Amino acid sequence: MEIVKIVVAGPRGRMGREAVHLVGRTENFELAAVLDNKNDGKNLSELEGFQGFDAPVYTNIEKCFQDTGADVLIDLTTPEVGYYHTKTALEYGVRPVVGTTGFTKDQLKEIEEICEEKKLGCIIAPNFAVGAVLMMKFSQMAAKYFQDIEIIELHHDQKLDAPSGTAVKTAEMIAEVREAKKQGHPNEKETIIGARGADYEGMHIHSVRLPGLIAHQQVMFGSDGQTLTIRHDSYNRASFMSGVKHAVETVLKIDTFVYGLENIIE
Amino acid sequence: MEIVKIVVAGPRGRMGREAVHLVGRTENFELAAVLDNKNDGKNLSELEGFQGFDAPVYTNIEKCFQDTGADVLIDLTTPEVGYYHTKTALEYGVRPVVGTTGFTKDQLKEIEEICEEKKLGCIIAPNFAVGAVLMMKFSQMAAKYFQDIEIIELHHDQKLDAPSGTAVKTAEMIAEVREAKKQGHPNEKETIIGARGADYEGMHIHSVRLPGLIAHQQVMFGSDGQTLTIRHDSYNRASFMSGVKHAVETVLKIDTFVYGLENIIE
Amino acid sequence: MEIVKIVVAGPRGRMGREAVHLVGRTENFELAAVLDNKNDGKNLSELEGFQGFDAPVYTNIEKCFQDTGADVLIDLTTPEVGYYHTKTALEYGVRPVVGTTGFTKDQLKEIEEICEEKKLGCIIAPNFAVGAVLMMKFSQMAAKYFQDIEIIELHHDQKLDAPSGTAVKTAEMIAEVREAKKQGHPNEKETIIGARGADYEGMHIHSVRLPGLIAHQQVMFGSDGQTLTIRHDSYNRASFMSGVKHAVETVLKIDTFVYGLENIIE
Amino acid sequence: MEIVKIVVAGPRGRMGREAVHLVGRTENFELAAVLDNKNDGKNLSELEGFQGFDAPVYTNIEKCFQDTGADVLIDLTTPEVGYYHTKTALEYGVRPVVGTTGFTKDQLKEIEEICEEKKLGCIIAPNFAVGAVLMMKFSQMAAKYFQDIEIIELHHDQKLDAPSGTAVKTAEMIAEVREAKKQGHPNEKETIIGARGADYEGMHIHSVRLPGLIAHQQVMFGSDGQTLTIRHDSYNRASFMSGVKHAVETVLKIDTFVYGLENIIE
Repeated sequence: MEIVKIVVAGPRGRMGREAVHLVGRTENFELAAVLDNKNDGKNLSELEGFQGFDAPVYTNIEKCFQDTGADVLIDLTTPEVGYYHTKTALEYGVRPVVGTTGFTKDQLKEIEEICEEKKLGCIIAPNFAVGAVLMMKFSQMAAKYFQDIEIIELHHDQKLDAPSGTAVKTAEMIAEVREAKKQGHPNEKETIIGARGADYEGMHIHSVRLPGLIAHQQVMFGSDGQTLTIRHDSYNRASFMSGVKHAVETVLKIDTFVYGLENIIE
Repeated sequence: MEIVKIVVAGPRGRMGREAVHLVGRTENFELAAVLDNKNDGKNLSELEGFQGFDAPVYTNIEKCFQDTGADVLIDLTTPEVGYYHTKTALEYGVRPVVGTTGFTKDQLKEIEEICEEKKLGCIIAPNFAVGAVLMMKFSQMAAKYFQDIEIIELHHDQKLDAPSGTAVKTAEMIAEVREAKKQGHPNEKETIIGARGADYEGMHIHSVRLPGLIAHQQVMFGSDGQTLTIRHDSYNRASFMSGVKHAVETVLKIDTFVYGLENIIE
Repeated sequence: MEIVKIVVAGPRGRMGREAVHLVGRTENFELAAVLDNKNDGKNLSELEGFQGFDAPVYTNIEKCFQDTGADVLIDLTTPEVGYYHTKTALEYGVRPVVGTTGFTKDQLKEIEEICEEKKLGCIIAPNFAVGAVLMMKFSQMAAKYFQDIEIIELHHDQKLDAPSGTAVKTAEMIAEVREAKKQGHPNEKETIIGARGADYEGMHIHSVRLPGLIAHQQVMFGSDGQTLTIRHDSYNRASFMSGVKHAVETVLKIDTFVYGLENIIE
Repeated sequence: MEIVKIVVAGPRGRMGREAVHLVGRTENFELAAVLDNKNDGKNLSELEGFQGFDAPVYTNIEKCFQDTGADVLIDLTTPEVGYYHTKTALEYGVRPVVGTTGFTKDQLKEIEEICEEKKLGCIIAPNFAVGAVLMMKFSQMAAKYFQDIEIIELHHDQKLDAPSGTAVKTAEMIAEVREAKKQGHPNEKETIIGARGADYEGMHIHSVRLPGLIAHQQVMFGSDGQTLTIRHDSYNRASFMSGVKHAVETVLKIDTFVYGLENIIE
């Protein structure tokens, strides 16, 4: 097993911190350095909460890549910083794994072109939770055989939007393979408005909000005499790390740009 | 264990048929006779689907009670017939167990008075599924400690009304002990109308409809760091029989009128 | 949409009866005839429970195929009868869809050779519940990303074997892509024997048995901060019919032998 | 609403920290002081993670009670310290709410006697999660009507014991009202050892262990045609605080000793 030298950008952020731990506990991953907007020249182990993590801290990305000869950059910062990091990494032959929803279409197009030109892998994904991506993928596959579908998403009661972004994304992916169809009895009626939930091309989406809940979704499929249910429960941010790990392993094997974790999951 | 002599009215109906089987398989229950609107004078075992059930068939209820000296009448017929049966049973000292939602308030009042006068037990219930009644009862109890509540009811897609009668009944029972309270984030918004379901005094009710499903309901309670869920799944009509059995056993021990299974369940 | 002429063998059996209804309600399916071991020469509509189903009844399969020019045979009888039916159908250019677990390897081999020789499609499957097959297929896919897996299967309490055949089949399919791995804490211990369930290459299988339940299974996958659950609920025999329908549609398009519904599901 | 003056012991521990937050956000609760084994004389707001929490820190419990005239002590420390705190609180007329499983029978007996003598309320509980206690209480109630019961408990894979303490406690509480009964088919057999789980007086307990899971339990009841399921999901330590709050409110109204949250929940 070859050692993969990794730079983590934004180690003090909540996601960056998880990424540092991921690299630390993965056998053939090595933390070559971290990129931080302060603490230049220190060792990571000096920073609060990183006892035992031995790696140099850089604020200058170019110097960081020159010194370390890194293979992969894991970037979980902001869209602005991440965009600059991604381009710089590709210039230095470092393959980026980036978690963001914030890049513009033009930025993504530009990054794709650099990848093609340099023949370098690069993976950008809005969601690194493998379980969530599998839930959406399986739902799309099941929709070929089951046309009656209801989505129930359940979140903590501080969430503002209903339905959740993941629920809408799931419905969109299903709609790609399912003809629009009104579900339920043709004459069904709501005696209290809203009981049957949100309508998305005939599918129904129900948003449950309760204190205590975190982030959960189940997609239900029904036909004669049977139901099929696919459910994802996300309990904390660590849930993203198996996807980041898979992306790091994959980005080394490809020489193109990939957007979305679903495209590197079979 | 004393033998309980039972008359079942409407043995050829779907519920009546289940009741005949219930009596047949319960050790200390004895099928004294059945009341049918035809087949007078035959033996039940001659009718289709009743091989091995030995009991006389009567069309005349008075003769039936005179001949058999029954202890209990199980009536799962129609409101009109059931009302007449109930009154006649009480006249003959036979204790009625009746499943119906169709009696008027005046009829119930009249039956209650007869019970008091005769000091006879009589149990009438709209729903004999013990599990459903326990779900509602537990929900009411839990609502004292958890004020954030969402009800998800799931039924086959031929159901016309949403929410279901049981869901509304559950919400009503909870509302008796819970102050009305708007749930969710004060600024939450639906990006697709209906996502947050029906609003009942701030509780939310979601109605899922899919082919394959039968009759299911789950009541969810949330507070800091925890959720409590109470769920009932009804797969077929046999689910009513444990409640009928409990009512038969109870009606022998009481000398008053009881409406609703929840009032004989501790 | 071209009309598909179908013969159903064993119409009075529980599965055969469902198949007759399936053909009846599917727009481009036509019930050309039924094969029964009695009632030769009658019309199906004369038999109990088939009012309105107009189709000739045959006891002689050869005469049946000669008279009707059927496209497809749906056979849900016994292994002995089904084997003979399958071979005869292929001789007459009729494509068989057969639900059975009972054919020997030699019989399957022989049927495969006839299909190749005649360039005729033929689909034999032990389980036609599309939902169950998808559950197994998705579980196998998910196992590439989640190595920690627990299977909970839930059935009525009259079931003799534990774990169920479907649970074992699921575990086998997962084991094809997952390296054997002991799950749980290395020092975990059972204070009551059996608590951790059955061990299948380190995966755990739990068999729940309760009156009321029908046939259910959920496969759970866990990793850091998340779980993925795939669940199938089978409520009655009608659940097999969507798979039979898909098989009929598929068998017309192929000219080979296929064993197992999973191989015609993408 | 009268103000309740509260002392929290062990504010820097994980549970104590939650308790401080509970007091802070509850309208009629006032944090009179905290008891810590260091930091005497400081203000709580000076300690890490307590910005904005204004309360004096004491290491001497007697001085603390003399100075503050507290109504209630919330103690979530260790059995040794907690025992001394509890007795001292009662001496000073302060009502204790204590979370521990560690007191000996003799210690509990002694505390009970002091409560009786002083006519002071005191509540000690091994588990303050209201949802878990309700789950157990409802399970016991349901067991009167459903004798077939299976418990599925699900925890993270670092847990050592199976079944969990809560699962065993639930089974014990059910066993108090249920006659021992062998469940399942009389001839059922395990084709892989352990499939049917642990046997507790005929009930079955299944222990699921997966990374990602936290602490969950569902109790399933089955009878003809129906199942009833009661489930508790605990996501983090905050789940204990609604129970602590209820205990504080209750301890002010009683003048006796109570062991176990279930005894102050109706």
